[in-house]
Amino acid sequence: MSEVSKTAHWGVSWVVVTGASRGLGAAICEGVAGVVDSGSLILGLARSSQGLNDTAHKVQQTNPNVKFIPVVMDLEKASKEDLEKVLGEYLKVGQDPPPTCSIIFHNAGSLGDLVYLRNHKDSDHINSYFTLNISSVVLLNAVFLEMVSQLPDVAVEIVNISSLCAIQPFKSWSLYCAAKAARDMLFKVLAAEEPKLMVLNYAPGPLDNDMQELARSETADDEMRLMFASLKEEGKLLACSVSVNKLLEVLKKRQFKSGDHVDYYDA
Amino acid sequence: MSEVSKTAHWGVSWVVVTGASRGLGAAICEGVAGVVDSGSLILGLARSSQGLNDTAHKVQQTNPNVKFIPVVMDLEKASKEDLEKVLGEYLKVGQDPPPTCSIIFHNAGSLGDLVYLRNHKDSDHINSYFTLNISSVVLLNAVFLEMVSQLPDVAVEIVNISSLCAIQPFKSWSLYCAAKAARDMLFKVLAAEEPKLMVLNYAPGPLDNDMQELARSETADDEMRLMFASLKEEGKLLACSVSVNKLLEVLKKRQFKSGDHVDYYDA
Repeated sequence: MSEVSKTAHWGVSWVVVTGASRGLGAAICEGVAGVVDSGSLILGLARSSQGLNDTAHKVQQTNPNVKFIPVVMDLEKASKEDLEKVLGEYLKVGQDPPPTCSIIFHNAGSLGDLVYLRNHKDSDHINSYFTLNISSVVLLNAVFLEMVSQLPDVAVEIVNISSLCAIQPFKSWSLYCAAKAARDMLFKVLAAEEPKLMVLNYAPGPLDNDMQELARSETADDEMRLMFASLKEEGKLLACSVSVNKLLEVLKKRQFKSGDHVDYYDA
Repeated sequence: MSEVSKTAHWGVSWVVVTGASRGLGAAICEGVAGVVDSGSLILGLARSSQGLNDTAHKVQQTNPNVKFIPVVMDLEKASKEDLEKVLGEYLKVGQDPPPTCSIIFHNAGSLGDLVYLRNHKDSDHINSYFTLNISSVVLLNAVFLEMVSQLPDVAVEIVNISSLCAIQPFKSWSLYCAAKAARDMLFKVLAAEEPKLMVLNYAPGPLDNDMQELARSETADDEMRLMFASLKEEGKLLACSVSVNKLLEVLKKRQFKSGDHVDYYDA
């Protein structure tokens, strides 16, 4: 995997990353810090204060001229007002240097109970799953677009962290697959609605992270659980940083149409 | 459109139809009544008692030997216990004649606010939209499968009323598109999980119903709104009964793989 070179298109960037305390989200913060110009801001949202501190440390090491702002927040419970307050405080007009690019990475997500669809009978779980994994994305995205629309001359980019599960059914992963399919579609609609935005649905490949640990231990379907175990055993899981480098390459090369679903393995 | 002939595969059927008080749901009840054997039951769920009475009348006229059971229920608010009580009461083992087929039509749905994704900032609306259009389907489907799994020798079929919007983005229809994409995926997963079930995602085409009236008047995007208006003006909308006849043909001919998305115009 070649290193991503610092290119003009990022410039001074204001970046929002959800699920920034660990795994892919933390790796996105670190990767982005390496390609943006001095004076850039990265707003990292997550529930874990400790995890955000770790991410802040990595960002600082990668690029001391980037400011990482940790925001402890539970996106499932955050109101429009909560989001407006946080984004309004940090992404406000008139800061120096002014941004040339603003980008949000909708990365936060959860697996939910990994049981067969016929066994999904806990309505509180189902509702809270879709609130976090779909509704909160709609709300945050709208607040983000409202905020950045007030900035002059800023290129706005939206990255949805998707999955192979958005386009391929995985047994006992129905909630996850459904939410990822819904999110891909939300952003396809956004791309059609807003020709000036650059919208990407990026499937990061199978990552060597906490989520895959859950996949190997909690997936109800035997065949799927063994498949996840063999991915690990055979060394086929990707380091988050490797997938992030590919994502940054995809964003740089722009060989996709706004709204497309691009997989790590296709790019 | 040829009439759907009464065929053996339906036999004595226990049928659940959501959104049964009007439009496509009412037409499904009426169409199914015409192809099932005497002693079949149709459980029609909807919020409107008056609408269900109308549907009961149509079913009675089509086939007086079919029993239509109206169930007044708001699926967005129904608990697992509510659903278990209703389905347990009417779909219980030991009734005469015993069913040879049990089928659920997940038809209920709503359009939600037809605004651009950047304007979706009402979290109560977004949450309640996905609760009705995704979560309630998961819950009802699980309760239905639990109930019919207790019936001996019954062929179980699941029909999700899908839409072109499940696979194609419509500007200012992001919630609807996302929910339909999510539902298609839920049922693709179900088909993979349960090889003994017959699962169909059916896109009924543009119907001449109340939903299309809303589409013509409420769609924020001018281009889309005019497109809906021209469908009406040019007589391109389908009567619900026409689309139901096609659906019944599709179910009868079985020229699809369980979990497939089949469109009115492709079948």
